[in-house]
Amino acid sequence: MRVLITGGAGFIGKKLAARLLERGRLGDGRIDHVTLFDVAPAEGLPADPRLEIRTGDITRMGVLLDLLRPGHDAIYHLAAVVSGAAEADIDLGYAVNLDGTRHLVEAVRAFGRKPRLVFASSVAVFGGDMPEVIGDETHLTPQTSYGAQKAMGELLVADYHRKGFMDGRSLRLPTIVVRPGRPNKAASTWASSIFREPLAGQEAVCPVGRDAAMYVLSPRRVVDALVHAMELPSEAFGMTRSLTLPGKTYSVAEMVTALERVAGRNVVDRIRWEPDPVIQRIVAGWPTRFETPRAERLGFQADDSLEEIVQQHIEDELGGRFVA
Amino acid sequence: MRVLITGGAGFIGKKLAARLLERGRLGDGRIDHVTLFDVAPAEGLPADPRLEIRTGDITRMGVLLDLLRPGHDAIYHLAAVVSGAAEADIDLGYAVNLDGTRHLVEAVRAFGRKPRLVFASSVAVFGGDMPEVIGDETHLTPQTSYGAQKAMGELLVADYHRKGFMDGRSLRLPTIVVRPGRPNKAASTWASSIFREPLAGQEAVCPVGRDAAMYVLSPRRVVDALVHAMELPSEAFGMTRSLTLPGKTYSVAEMVTALERVAGRNVVDRIRWEPDPVIQRIVAGWPTRFETPRAERLGFQADDSLEEIVQQHIEDELGGRFVA
Ligand SMILES: NC(=O)c1ccc[n+]([C@@H]2O[C@H](COP(=O)([O-])OP(=O)(O)OC[C@H]3O[C@@H](n4cnc5c(N)ncnc54)[C@H](O)[C@@H]3O)[C@@H](O)[C@H]2O)c1
Ligand SMILES: NC(=O)c1ccc[n+]([C@@H]2O[C@H](COP(=O)([O-])OP(=O)(O)OC[C@H]3O[C@@H](n4cnc5c(N)ncnc54)[C@H](O)[C@@H]3O)[C@@H](O)[C@H]2O)c1
Repeated sequence: MRVLITGGAGFIGKKLAARLLERGRLGDGRIDHVTLFDVAPAEGLPADPRLEIRTGDITRMGVLLDLLRPGHDAIYHLAAVVSGAAEADIDLGYAVNLDGTRHLVEAVRAFGRKPRLVFASSVAVFGGDMPEVIGDETHLTPQTSYGAQKAMGELLVADYHRKGFMDGRSLRLPTIVVRPGRPNKAASTWASSIFREPLAGQEAVCPVGRDAAMYVLSPRRVVDALVHAMELPSEAFGMTRSLTLPGKTYSVAEMVTALERVAGRNVVDRIRWEPDPVIQRIVAGWPTRFETPRAERLGFQADDSLEEIVQQHIEDELGGRFVA
Repeated sequence: MRVLITGGAGFIGKKLAARLLERGRLGDGRIDHVTLFDVAPAEGLPADPRLEIRTGDITRMGVLLDLLRPGHDAIYHLAAVVSGAAEADIDLGYAVNLDGTRHLVEAVRAFGRKPRLVFASSVAVFGGDMPEVIGDETHLTPQTSYGAQKAMGELLVADYHRKGFMDGRSLRLPTIVVRPGRPNKAASTWASSIFREPLAGQEAVCPVGRDAAMYVLSPRRVVDALVHAMELPSEAFGMTRSLTLPGKTYSVAEMVTALERVAGRNVVDRIRWEPDPVIQRIVAGWPTRFETPRAERLGFQADDSLEEIVQQHIEDELGGRFVA
């Protein structure tokens, strides 16, 4: 079978590609080919004859038609302009996140191959005046353009599924921590920074207080979920093609305690507390209480503990060693 | 002030235009000008110097830019391809209902005038696996392309509102009965037919059983709601810019009883019962139980009784007389 990952040069795309190549299968199908499609160059991927890198811009319909012409059986749609960028540049956000998704589902429709498609949505579809606990039937009231575009993507996937053009499924991802690399402009960047920088011997800035909280999932678990979502039979999703992935909500205090337990006091002391009222206000507006019985019934799983998430980062990104 | 109604040659658009011209005001503003924009010709409108008819296609961005250039303070967005047509022609549905809405909000953004905008969404945004009662916080799981496009339109309106380009509000309309004219291809067409044709001395076909039910609102009340939605201060809607209008759910048996009470046995006998399993299945999938406390708090109102809806049709469409 042939697999396509849009946004395949990104954080999650690369990890997913590596996992798929390592597994060699999706369900009953042997993976013969994995195409990574991205506007950015893909670096640090395993050398593998099954892997093909395609560079191109999802905002251009012709590019999508060329990309899909050879035929794919399983498509992961991860390409996106993330929240800070989509908020700063409304045209770019709509072009990539809405039009890009539409180009993809239209190209899928054009070739009539009816592939499975897993779309990476986000818990950013929730926001504003929310019920105290977000459940499986809570309405989507995004308070960012990114969240609005993800919600529209879910609707497109569900509609093109219903029309029989593909077998679509959307997963709402929690914030994935620990994200490797450098801090970015996302208001959530500290949630990775406060682990990542101190473990690398560097200072991290934490702009929020110890009672701030975040709904999170680890990189390994999100890759598990993406694989599982593709392997589940279509009926498992029924008429509602979207679901919120199980994650766990941790306070900053719990994050710091877990880091100290795994890596010691010295490491934790590298966190510099610099309250930023703007970021605090944004973060305070994010939903933190989720109930995801449907996803749990379908076998999706959250991490067991924060300690495990920290350990995972040390193993997967730091070669097993941190700066004590 | 200048008012624009897209889809202004349609059923609701014409009634709204007549009401606005008659009132002469919206909130504190005197209505100096009403533009009706539609791809179809507008017929049967009052001769009024304040009224301008503009013919054009909302799928063309240039048309929208020309339309909005003179500046409008209040915009009603009613133009749409309705459910049967959007389902039969997916390209047309997305072009008018999604791209058309996007062209409108983009043109609004382009001129920077920040008008109020009321968007006519639909309870067709609900469907599929639903909770027993649809409340103010129930997720949107449309089972038609039309419903999906309306849900995307709501997200666009909310996002362009949040970005400060306009003051947007979306109303989810129940099925409006009694709709004048002829039966159409909508699976709900019988809900108007069983009143309209018998009152005009003609036979009506009812394809569903007496226990089938429908969530409805009358033409007068929907026009009331559109006026009220435009007059409410922005804060009334808060962070959630959409709401489901209060309606009432009546069974076919109740509809027939109300018709008999108002118009007599003879009229009711003109209903021919021709069960159609396809239509019965579609109708059985529609939500019927709604709770709309938020809209009620904001002063939106359902009709008092079915009898009143029948009387209203006789007064407004039949000049006060029906064929007994
Ligand atoms: N990481 C998270 O915490 C998180 C949380 C919720 C949802 N998601 C979603 O999961 C997906 C993957 O996230 P990620 O963390 O790997 O993000 P990422 O930014 O690392 O990857 C996204 C990729 O999309 C690519 N892309 C952007 N514009 C493109 C264009 N015009 N054409 C083609 N490719 C384009 C980028 O180059 C990037 O490589 C995204 O859709 C994201 O919105 C991520
Ligand atoms: N009537 C109902 O029961 C009901 C229920 C829920 C929602 N709504 C919504 O309320 C609005 C008005 O409904 P209605 O019953 O008056 O429908 P209608 O079909 O009578 O009016 C819609 C108008 O939009 C116009 N239109 C279609 N394509 C266009 C295009 N490309 N460019 C410009 N105009 C175009 C049509 O010509 C028509 O006059 C619609 O958005 C509809 O979806 C209606």
